[in-house]
Amino acid sequence: MGRQRKPKVAIGQAGGPTAVLNSSLYSFIDKAYQDYEVYGIKHGFQGLVNKQFVKFDNKLLKQLEKSRDVPGAFLGSGRYPMNEKDMYQSIQNLKEQQIHALVFIGGNGTMWTCRQLEMIAQKMNYDLSVIGIPKTVDNDLHETDHSPGFGSAARYVALSVRDIGKDLQAMQNFESVRIIETMGRNVGWLTAASMYLKETEVQPPHFIYVPERPFILKNFLHDISETMKSIGHATVVVSEGIRDEKGELISQLSLTVDKHNTVLGGAAAFLAKTVSKELNLASRPELLGMNQRCSQLYVSPQDRIEAEALAKEAAHFLRKGSSGIMVTIIRESLQTDKYMFKIGCTDLAKVAGLERPLPTHFLDEKGTKITNEYRNWLRDIVGSDIKGYPKGLTELVLEK
Amino acid sequence: MGRQRKPKVAIGQAGGPTAVLNSSLYSFIDKAYQDYEVYGIKHGFQGLVNKQFVKFDNKLLKQLEKSRDVPGAFLGSGRYPMNEKDMYQSIQNLKEQQIHALVFIGGNGTMWTCRQLEMIAQKMNYDLSVIGIPKTVDNDLHETDHSPGFGSAARYVALSVRDIGKDLQAMQNFESVRIIETMGRNVGWLTAASMYLKETEVQPPHFIYVPERPFILKNFLHDISETMKSIGHATVVVSEGIRDEKGELISQLSLTVDKHNTVLGGAAAFLAKTVSKELNLASRPELLGMNQRCSQLYVSPQDRIEAEALAKEAAHFLRKGSSGIMVTIIRESLQTDKYMFKIGCTDLAKVAGLERPLPTHFLDEKGTKITNEYRNWLRDIVGSDIKGYPKGLTELVLEK
Repeated sequence: MGRQRKPKVAIGQAGGPTAVLNSSLYSFIDKAYQDYEVYGIKHGFQGLVNKQFVKFDNKLLKQLEKSRDVPGAFLGSGRYPMNEKDMYQSIQNLKEQQIHALVFIGGNGTMWTCRQLEMIAQKMNYDLSVIGIPKTVDNDLHETDHSPGFGSAARYVALSVRDIGKDLQAMQNFESVRIIETMGRNVGWLTAASMYLKETEVQPPHFIYVPERPFILKNFLHDISETMKSIGHATVVVSEGIRDEKGELISQLSLTVDKHNTVLGGAAAFLAKTVSKELNLASRPELLGMNQRCSQLYVSPQDRIEAEALAKEAAHFLRKGSSGIMVTIIRESLQTDKYMFKIGCTDLAKVAGLERPLPTHFLDEKGTKITNEYRNWLRDIVGSDIKGYPKGLTELVLEK
Repeated sequence: MGRQRKPKVAIGQAGGPTAVLNSSLYSFIDKAYQDYEVYGIKHGFQGLVNKQFVKFDNKLLKQLEKSRDVPGAFLGSGRYPMNEKDMYQSIQNLKEQQIHALVFIGGNGTMWTCRQLEMIAQKMNYDLSVIGIPKTVDNDLHETDHSPGFGSAARYVALSVRDIGKDLQAMQNFESVRIIETMGRNVGWLTAASMYLKETEVQPPHFIYVPERPFILKNFLHDISETMKSIGHATVVVSEGIRDEKGELISQLSLTVDKHNTVLGGAAAFLAKTVSKELNLASRPELLGMNQRCSQLYVSPQDRIEAEALAKEAAHFLRKGSSGIMVTIIRESLQTDKYMFKIGCTDLAKVAGLERPLPTHFLDEKGTKITNEYRNWLRDIVGSDIKGYPKGLTELVLEK
């Protein structure tokens, strides 16, 4: 009797990359490799539709290992909204290859597609296990304490905003206002992380504006004016996806959107212009940009540890026969000093296409500052190794 | 007979901050403090005109020491173009305080003002020593091998562009082109530094465009098209100050400039729109922004060492009776493996208001790539501790 063939699993990366997306990929494959024939799917869901499978051998695994700590997506990622026909085609493609397990690393859109694929496989009577591994810089996935990718992005935002605010403070006789824009289409987790290293009232950033609260221009201009009066310069942070009371995106009020530019961005540009015009203050927009999700230097060590641990556990769940789940991070120790996490799982149905807003208790009543609860919650995720500037730092420039 | 009073020196910080501007300030004062009564001038030249002097005592020096490694400007910096009346007023202010030595940390504009002040003091028969300490992220000061602030900014650009290009590579079925904009009004040193970690033809960035060469839109679009054909995605880097053949700023062709926004920026935004329109490719502009000059995490250790060494030596030159000079970095070892520098000085007249372009031999013939000479020249300035991604990194996504 011949040697029994290993079962097959296919894995893909979808959505915008994070700084630890390749850590997840490597750890899953490294763990699954013994028990499975592993196929990589190129270019996310598009590659699944187009049969872009690549079988991992020792050489390819070694190659991937080199990319383990490198940003981007080893397999290629992308955004590809599948229609129903694409989904049937995808299952057909897996069937042709006799691949009975599908794993995707992605966000809530990815989890939605995973769930659809699982249901379509059932309709087609094709036996398919589907497992999702979370990944998002926005941190908008439900059911997990937080998601890999977020910790590093939050670290980038916290450190950058601290430094950019300090730079403005030095230039206050030339420039008055900086409006920094972070990623976050519908949730303010990253924007709120900009306050992580803020220790005093005078220290930037002075206010944040998140999609969870309606953006009221009059209040915003008032906040800026008051900060100018009391401090002499103002650094504020907005999410790309802030919306006014009617639900209209502030970024769409900007002139920078064109038909090819489906990417959000432009809220800060619009607001800087408005501040210049309405308050007659020199104001500069600052879009934090792609560095938020790809900066290798800002990777949070804990974020990498968790990305790898989750992916390993996904391989373990698969081997145990699980399907229709996403692996999750469970925080074990909110009340103790020492951060500890364990790994669990949740039904794809509970996360698919859903967005988790920043909880109310992580923001103050006005919604423009964070609470200490959020600061404590963030600490071990962004890395307790990052600190504010030296304690008691008071600069001459601050004195009137 | 009473104890003889120490002579007085006043020091200010001018222009845009760098990540090591406070290192320079601290080192100068720490060195000069024994022999001089040291006065800080708040808010750059504006503070000189408005008599914003602050005497350093032990307490203030301790306070400054905390800011030594912090971005921004401890004294406050700023941009303040002085007219002749301001200059006479400035000398009058120094005279009233019996301050006979003036030191400014700044760029070529600052050095121009220092020289004017020295000449006006002579006209007023006021004995004044004037010394300049270089500082610029643009690296456009003549007579010095390079300037403090540049090494850290170049490090930021090299690492960020590498990561942003890698991120695009992963997203090539969604986005095709990224146009990254760096600082550099008239010189391309920083833009060119974006190629420092590039090791192969396929690796981003694929082309750079610097102010030293006229920007020809047709050639630029051709470069992008060719890169798309051969690689499938294109990351290019432009200086904020690129100009067309008629000398017109590309950034001024953009809609994002308004009357309050005197700051350059917008070349990438304009070009991304043009690429979308002319080549029908999804294209994203990416402005590297303030992080270039203030990111604490990206400080080049060598940059800090040199900032401190130059400032110390400026105090030494002052004590020896020098005036009308700027301290300079002299590279001693271009032909040897080991980087070594010593400190010299030059006449303010040789640097005042002048801009040093990137030398021809640091760019290839077309002017869109750097030579190995530039790469070698940069190595120890940005820090030989930073490396490219692991050798032999080839990703699946690269294969067709």
